[in-house]
Amino acid sequence: MRRSVLRACSAAKGGGWAALSDKEIVEQVKAKKIAFYGLEQALAPDYDRAIAIRREIVKTTCPSTAAAHPVDTLPYKNYDWGRVVGQSCENILGYIPVPVGLAGPLLLDGKEVGLPMATTEGALVASTHRGARAINLSGGCKTAVLKEGMTRAPVVEVGSFEEAIAVVRFCEERFDVLRDAFESTTRFGKLRSIKCAMAGRQVHMRFSAFTGDAMGMNMITKGCDKALKVLQEHIPSVQVLALSGNFCTDKKPSAVNWVEGRGKSVVAEAVIKREVVENVLKCDVDSVVELNVTKNLRGSALAGSIGGFNAHAANVVAAVYIATGQDPAQVVESSTCMTTVEKAGEDLVVSVMMPSIEVGAVGGGTGLPSQRAMLELMGCAGASKEDPGSNSRQIARVVAGAVMCGELSLLSGLASGHLLSAHMKLNRKPPSQ
Amino acid sequence: MRRSVLRACSAAKGGGWAALSDKEIVEQVKAKKIAFYGLEQALAPDYDRAIAIRREIVKTTCPSTAAAHPVDTLPYKNYDWGRVVGQSCENILGYIPVPVGLAGPLLLDGKEVGLPMATTEGALVASTHRGARAINLSGGCKTAVLKEGMTRAPVVEVGSFEEAIAVVRFCEERFDVLRDAFESTTRFGKLRSIKCAMAGRQVHMRFSAFTGDAMGMNMITKGCDKALKVLQEHIPSVQVLALSGNFCTDKKPSAVNWVEGRGKSVVAEAVIKREVVENVLKCDVDSVVELNVTKNLRGSALAGSIGGFNAHAANVVAAVYIATGQDPAQVVESSTCMTTVEKAGEDLVVSVMMPSIEVGAVGGGTGLPSQRAMLELMGCAGASKEDPGSNSRQIARVVAGAVMCGELSLLSGLASGHLLSAHMKLNRKPPSQ
Amino acid sequence: MRRSVLRACSAAKGGGWAALSDKEIVEQVKAKKIAFYGLEQALAPDYDRAIAIRREIVKTTCPSTAAAHPVDTLPYKNYDWGRVVGQSCENILGYIPVPVGLAGPLLLDGKEVGLPMATTEGALVASTHRGARAINLSGGCKTAVLKEGMTRAPVVEVGSFEEAIAVVRFCEERFDVLRDAFESTTRFGKLRSIKCAMAGRQVHMRFSAFTGDAMGMNMITKGCDKALKVLQEHIPSVQVLALSGNFCTDKKPSAVNWVEGRGKSVVAEAVIKREVVENVLKCDVDSVVELNVTKNLRGSALAGSIGGFNAHAANVVAAVYIATGQDPAQVVESSTCMTTVEKAGEDLVVSVMMPSIEVGAVGGGTGLPSQRAMLELMGCAGASKEDPGSNSRQIARVVAGAVMCGELSLLSGLASGHLLSAHMKLNRKPPSQ
Amino acid sequence: MRRSVLRACSAAKGGGWAALSDKEIVEQVKAKKIAFYGLEQALAPDYDRAIAIRREIVKTTCPSTAAAHPVDTLPYKNYDWGRVVGQSCENILGYIPVPVGLAGPLLLDGKEVGLPMATTEGALVASTHRGARAINLSGGCKTAVLKEGMTRAPVVEVGSFEEAIAVVRFCEERFDVLRDAFESTTRFGKLRSIKCAMAGRQVHMRFSAFTGDAMGMNMITKGCDKALKVLQEHIPSVQVLALSGNFCTDKKPSAVNWVEGRGKSVVAEAVIKREVVENVLKCDVDSVVELNVTKNLRGSALAGSIGGFNAHAANVVAAVYIATGQDPAQVVESSTCMTTVEKAGEDLVVSVMMPSIEVGAVGGGTGLPSQRAMLELMGCAGASKEDPGSNSRQIARVVAGAVMCGELSLLSGLASGHLLSAHMKLNRKPPSQ
Repeated sequence: MRRSVLRACSAAKGGGWAALSDKEIVEQVKAKKIAFYGLEQALAPDYDRAIAIRREIVKTTCPSTAAAHPVDTLPYKNYDWGRVVGQSCENILGYIPVPVGLAGPLLLDGKEVGLPMATTEGALVASTHRGARAINLSGGCKTAVLKEGMTRAPVVEVGSFEEAIAVVRFCEERFDVLRDAFESTTRFGKLRSIKCAMAGRQVHMRFSAFTGDAMGMNMITKGCDKALKVLQEHIPSVQVLALSGNFCTDKKPSAVNWVEGRGKSVVAEAVIKREVVENVLKCDVDSVVELNVTKNLRGSALAGSIGGFNAHAANVVAAVYIATGQDPAQVVESSTCMTTVEKAGEDLVVSVMMPSIEVGAVGGGTGLPSQRAMLELMGCAGASKEDPGSNSRQIARVVAGAVMCGELSLLSGLASGHLLSAHMKLNRKPPSQ
Repeated sequence: MRRSVLRACSAAKGGGWAALSDKEIVEQVKAKKIAFYGLEQALAPDYDRAIAIRREIVKTTCPSTAAAHPVDTLPYKNYDWGRVVGQSCENILGYIPVPVGLAGPLLLDGKEVGLPMATTEGALVASTHRGARAINLSGGCKTAVLKEGMTRAPVVEVGSFEEAIAVVRFCEERFDVLRDAFESTTRFGKLRSIKCAMAGRQVHMRFSAFTGDAMGMNMITKGCDKALKVLQEHIPSVQVLALSGNFCTDKKPSAVNWVEGRGKSVVAEAVIKREVVENVLKCDVDSVVELNVTKNLRGSALAGSIGGFNAHAANVVAAVYIATGQDPAQVVESSTCMTTVEKAGEDLVVSVMMPSIEVGAVGGGTGLPSQRAMLELMGCAGASKEDPGSNSRQIARVVAGAVMCGELSLLSGLASGHLLSAHMKLNRKPPSQ
Repeated sequence: MRRSVLRACSAAKGGGWAALSDKEIVEQVKAKKIAFYGLEQALAPDYDRAIAIRREIVKTTCPSTAAAHPVDTLPYKNYDWGRVVGQSCENILGYIPVPVGLAGPLLLDGKEVGLPMATTEGALVASTHRGARAINLSGGCKTAVLKEGMTRAPVVEVGSFEEAIAVVRFCEERFDVLRDAFESTTRFGKLRSIKCAMAGRQVHMRFSAFTGDAMGMNMITKGCDKALKVLQEHIPSVQVLALSGNFCTDKKPSAVNWVEGRGKSVVAEAVIKREVVENVLKCDVDSVVELNVTKNLRGSALAGSIGGFNAHAANVVAAVYIATGQDPAQVVESSTCMTTVEKAGEDLVVSVMMPSIEVGAVGGGTGLPSQRAMLELMGCAGASKEDPGSNSRQIARVVAGAVMCGELSLLSGLASGHLLSAHMKLNRKPPSQ
Repeated sequence: MRRSVLRACSAAKGGGWAALSDKEIVEQVKAKKIAFYGLEQALAPDYDRAIAIRREIVKTTCPSTAAAHPVDTLPYKNYDWGRVVGQSCENILGYIPVPVGLAGPLLLDGKEVGLPMATTEGALVASTHRGARAINLSGGCKTAVLKEGMTRAPVVEVGSFEEAIAVVRFCEERFDVLRDAFESTTRFGKLRSIKCAMAGRQVHMRFSAFTGDAMGMNMITKGCDKALKVLQEHIPSVQVLALSGNFCTDKKPSAVNWVEGRGKSVVAEAVIKREVVENVLKCDVDSVVELNVTKNLRGSALAGSIGGFNAHAANVVAAVYIATGQDPAQVVESSTCMTTVEKAGEDLVVSVMMPSIEVGAVGGGTGLPSQRAMLELMGCAGASKEDPGSNSRQIARVVAGAVMCGELSLLSGLASGHLLSAHMKLNRKPPSQ
């Protein structure tokens, strides 16, 4: 033991914990010489070892009555943890494999694009695929990005009513000053607007910015920080209470995102031929039109929904987000959607309006190998050199197209009474019960 | 080629496609003899081969300009696809590994419970962990499940105003008839209430039921189907327009879930000692109390939020849901939360009220090995034999507890100005850029 | 002057201010011997004199540059102020005459009922009248009261998490105890339910009660007060923070009223014959059906409305409320309404669903002579002896019927492009400009 | 009879119905020679006679079992009906007298202004008056109009997805074209912005315009009409479905008004000295601060309110609106308000944020003599010649100030437990029961 202590000490000095045995490392963690979360750093670049040791520790801190400890079931080997450590996850135990199915390819704006979906909900990929097939057989779908702007709303406080009004007026009249400050912190970001809301002597300032191919939360947070410093030079009593005051709104339901948009505001449309409705979707045009009013408008209105005027947009958004490394917590607002179904001649016109699709082609989970591969499969990974922002816009278009596939298919299924049977067939009989 | 056709034909007859070469299988798919989605079935139980062949096909249908086709990056081997096929995903390409970090263990209702979080957002696990540490040091947290009931709202139509009213009255006065019909379809399910909303001659009927340890959507859908058949015996003009009319509300923002609850309605509380607030959370009690009002109440109110009176509940809910095989699209309503922070003496009382946590200990993604392992780690996997429902309730309690850790930590961080630096340190410098 | 002081003193002693001259009274008010608000009491029963004196005082405290002081324009004579003083208004200056027009009579549930509307919006009465005519020509309309319950939500605080839960449980499990306490304070009131929402250690308790023919706010406030006293006997730490904690919700937009109802929840329907749509409403059935979806569903959904799925329900509700002495501030939630228009055969089916009509046949402004006369005109003034509550329900039915007239007429007008011209003709050329 | 027919005929020819006897007029109405609504026109300028005859007719169409017919109770004489006929009301029966009380004067932006309130709710004027007194004793209140713009949102339809996008782009890129068209119809109106929302091939276009001293609905409707005609010249497929598509939003609860504002967006603040809180409001500063969070933030958040973060703004808004001839149906959105109460040193800072105050100094009911007199009393009647718009802005400021008085007083009353007793004393014992 004495020797190990010596080794530990010397390791600590040189940062060379790697020389210790696993058992010794565990002891160092218990003795708080190595932090539980610091194992990867201590043993870098041997992350597998760090994780393996953490798993052993967890067996004692979270004991299990099962024959094999559950943590043994979680895979962790053969994974490039170097891309995760210090960036995407801490206290790593391993990874959860989420099955990926492919819907489509969908003919979107004249090009075929595969729709990778990571999900464990039976029938979801099949249903989306069916929607894509119906759309393709009718000539594909069209999309447009109507608006673009990631938002962040710091909240500041001043010492008087007059100063609070001065802050509001400054954002209107001296917008250029704040824009210049903001843009001095970023190569791609462009500040587009600041929307203020006063509550007493506090002002909530919703910054909206173009953020290139990044989803943009970090970029905009940094830009806000700078802009606020400049604001303080002009109105010295300004005190920043928080860099995010929920008027953004990030990862919470909110009307402001529904009305103003956040990220990309996208619309998409497809015209489905009558015979496709009948033969592929096993339904008739009028029934889908009617059901859309009954369910997606009236039902959601009765439920008191803001932005939930769709059948199951969140299912598709969540699956594409997890597959492509987007932030799954942003499904909350990214999935707000109004689905419209109308009859045009004998055919069916379906469309979706999604004002808050928050996606990036770089940053966050998009840099992990599998997730990035799925973005590559969709043809929009990484930052576009020629047209910055075009890749993230394309992701948003694909998300809207995929959602439209899902809407079309589920509405048809419900209208023709297939919901129960489809789910029952695919989603039951779990082998483990 | 002739031989292969023969082989294919005989394989088709006997279902024995397995005997064909990969190339031949691909040809059969192109010729639509084997459905693209039917590869697993055709080659069962050799699912790895089915997936490998699909990946080859995808390389041609979704061609890539990259040196290696992106699909080659997606892992698919060494996975028990038998648990996925026909249940959780279709058109399988492989799986996305989502890194899992462990926050806690958290001392919750007197027991330590690990908080597995699948996420790619840097600092999220670390932040939740810090919250857990602060709570543990103060004696842990308490939770309660105030209400329990999964919901499904079919929409029916009748031929007259009087009949629509008759449907509403029947649900009130003859509830027992519908309850008996509902419960005849399920061993565990108990119908608790039916809430009706009329829109013209359509009636939206929100069934709420106890569903044991299952999240319960399938169980309740089946029960509704039966109850509606019995309703039709009493009011023959009743026509079911859809088994889900959005008054449920599933995977969409809605006030009805916020006000009435869906799944489990959970509250949790912890009292954080002043010195813990100062030493662990690096903040002072008053600042957190103030910021909670400014951000979580006023900011969200200004944003027009229904149920989003929290800092980032969705982050924690999404991470725990993905780790434990819950439905990530249900994060939309499961993450609605009001966070309350008050001062009690010198200490800080933090609490969360989450009315719509939709979780199950069985069914859906919870049956997949890794996800189930994480539930086991939390001590609540599978159906409880002694007390049906107790495992799913425990998941809900843990989710609420974990959310409270995240709230406490983020609010403290924001209040002391750490947000930007914490994110910047952990979430940037993606190696691939 | 000396004499007057003596007189004043003796008047004060005996309460006999009446003996003083007007000028002396004014001096007493300036000297704060008589309160500005206390003039009626001081000079009772000569209220006209009290008001006249106040008007003189106001001419000095609110001076005007106009030739005649504006207060001189306001009528105050020939009014029975005895019914107002101490009950309905303080610091009385006079009264505002609001023009009353009569729409209808409307054939409602088989009986003709006049629709008195107090309004200054040109075309409103005419438009409602046109709707009534269309309905009458088609056989009238039907209504139903689906639910009944005025609400009040006090908020209480306790000293611990466990006690907060105990309050919630007490309301569920010992409801009878609180009901008995509540009902001990009232002859007509019947407590129907208590719905709790926890926020930290505070519990918002939404009492819902049948309140007979009164709108019921005072009745229920009194009942709550008593019930809370009894609750305190069982859970002594209960502290009442406020008798109304906004979870009621009174006079504010809220989803809880939309989803749960407040006051009377009423539905109404009429089937309008195709020829009536064409000849009276100058429109065609399909256009109205379409416009209802476009405007009342999609437009309101895009606007982020909770409960505003109608064309102009508030116009009609406000006019009937002012005419009949209801509380015009309650128009906020009483006017929430979903209007549904469908085609049935060749005819048009219009309906309204109004969950929160808050009206009374007694109390408040309904006791004033003109307002009461309008209730009598509608056949539902005062408390029903035979069937308590039936008069207030009837008011609610009439409100719903009148709203439906307004919806039908405005939708038709808009659909056929008449809106602008109708308004322009009636609402412009104010003589004073 | 023969003679009367002749007379009637000749009267009809010459429009000279006035020569007929009352009884003959009634017969002409029954015979549909004179329309029921046309009596005023037929007998102009003897409106009293027209109304008297209508009242007689109503006695037969709406018979009453009462000894005296209720219509006899409704006053109608001594009123200048010439200002109402053809402008503000049809089918006139008389008028409803609504008692007016005076709160204040309130020291607002350095000037004293009386607050006329038309109401039948006991204690409302007294309570507002008390709030005004507390504010005055503390030095008065300040207000600011942060934004100004009445809105109207027509909805148009085009024949394709591309054209719908073209409409949206036109509003952004060619705004000047539409603005010029709009402004060609009005002397005062200035089009400020157009905000579009797409739903399928329909585009909801929210026009926002400065409308001088008018509330502005008619002005903007006319301007929209013209702008749409010009839009059609550029995009010929544009079809106007309705001049109002509810995205405005007028007289319905909506998030768009809360987030974007409608009419005047006003903030107001007052600092109340500690001793005034204690002596006048009979309360302590901390209690009011706390209760504001508990009730106006948490309670309303639990209720799912958009914009209802106040105690009873609607009460005050309704009373001032009825007193000054504003549109009482607009109380729905005009009363949205966030009340903020904070402690500053030992004192209390109260403020209100009201984004949608819809008021005018000309037009509508403001032209009627009594209503106009109340505007004169407030010092802001009619169109301002020097600074068009300043009078309507002043009304909005006064409304906000009056609301703040009401908030301060009710919150204090509730906090000190006075609610019940104040209401009970003033609002009960109606003499007629």
